Amino acid sequence: MTRGRFITLEGLEGAGKSTALARVREYLQRQGIDPVMTREPGGTPLGERIRALLLGQSEPPMAPATEALLMFAARSEHLDKRIRPALERGQWVVCDRFTDASYAYQGWGRGLGAERIAALEDWTQGALRPDLTLWLDVPVETGLARAAGRGEAPDRFEQERDGFFERVHEGYAALAERFPERIRRVDAGQPLEAVLTALEEALASAVTRWLSGTEAH
Amino acid sequence: MTRGRFITLEGLEGAGKSTALARVREYLQRQGIDPVMTREPGGTPLGERIRALLLGQSEPPMAPATEALLMFAARSEHLDKRIRPALERGQWVVCDRFTDASYAYQGWGRGLGAERIAALEDWTQGALRPDLTLWLDVPVETGLARAAGRGEAPDRFEQERDGFFERVHEGYAALAERFPERIRRVDAGQPLEAVLTALEEALASAVTRWLSGTEAH
Repeated sequence: MTRGRFITLEGLEGAGKSTALARVREYLQRQGIDPVMTREPGGTPLGERIRALLLGQSEPPMAPATEALLMFAARSEHLDKRIRPALERGQWVVCDRFTDASYAYQGWGRGLGAERIAALEDWTQGALRPDLTLWLDVPVETGLARAAGRGEAPDRFEQERDGFFERVHEGYAALAERFPERIRRVDAGQPLEAVLTALEEALASAVTRWLSGTEAH
Repeated sequence: MTRGRFITLEGLEGAGKSTALARVREYLQRQGIDPVMTREPGGTPLGERIRALLLGQSEPPMAPATEALLMFAARSEHLDKRIRPALERGQWVVCDRFTDASYAYQGWGRGLGAERIAALEDWTQGALRPDLTLWLDVPVETGLARAAGRGEAPDRFEQERDGFFERVHEGYAALAERFPERIRRVDAGQPLEAVLTALEEALASAVTRWLSGTEAH
């Protein structure tokens, strides 16, 4: 049994991830692949309870280190109960945010630094990394305006100010520069149809290569 | 301002920690010290919510790595909001279980191993370690019989079988051997008054030394 492929989607609030996820799924289904669709933080019953702690109000504000440990606790459970079992039985997994978000939000946004996130990444994941990460790169102002336009109550992260999202964006950009093979940047500041076309092209280029077997697993 | 002292109490279920904690507090108060009394997992509002996740039923059972990360998430918050601030303003802190319990329960009991716990300890605590740890060493059978006699519904740990508590006990014994200066073993298999006398002697020997200033802080 060949291991399944692990694809993650990343981006700021308002980057268009929900629409993009639907498009990723449709594209894979057209290739005869029925992926497990999941999200972080969450993805398991316990993980969703941890998600509620992370996104709900915390008074006094939780320490950045606490936030990172909770993110990785939810991730550990997600890996153990859903992601690894699916990959091992040959299924593909598409995840709405993964460890790049911990680098961007906790490492850059909260200022913990990339090294401390890397230590938890190794501790929790061992050698497991996504095969492909699609980064929906939206300008901070555009993303926040779109997120505000949804009319939903903002979660604890969406309420951040003082350059938080600029730092998160800087984090994603640094990661994309560091891992150019894995992370494909999609310009998400364009009109929606152009974004989805660019997304599908980035995805297709990796998937075609994998399915043709020209790249070792 | 001299930093306060950090004292932890450890032991299996039924070791007599509650009675011992009251005795520690009384002894310190007789020396004119009014300690912060706290517990793990928990000690903060968020930490108590994490405690509920840890001690409540988890179906399917949470992964050992998830359990360890949640323990350290609660600890991170506890350190940030209560333990470090108290120590820094000169208060003493007495904590019902701390990181030795993570070594014993997750490292030995769940089989994660001491090295993986040590990595999280360094990540979360930096250089902070207790100044004194009182280990109430009770034989596993005695402790479990006492705990069962309380008539309370057992939590997720108290329901463990298959040698779990024997491994936890082995972990505590290994830690006491490795850190003989910090960890004082108290024979908690004796009748209660003898236990409390031995506990107070172990405590008094450290406290007298600290208060007389013969040991650098």
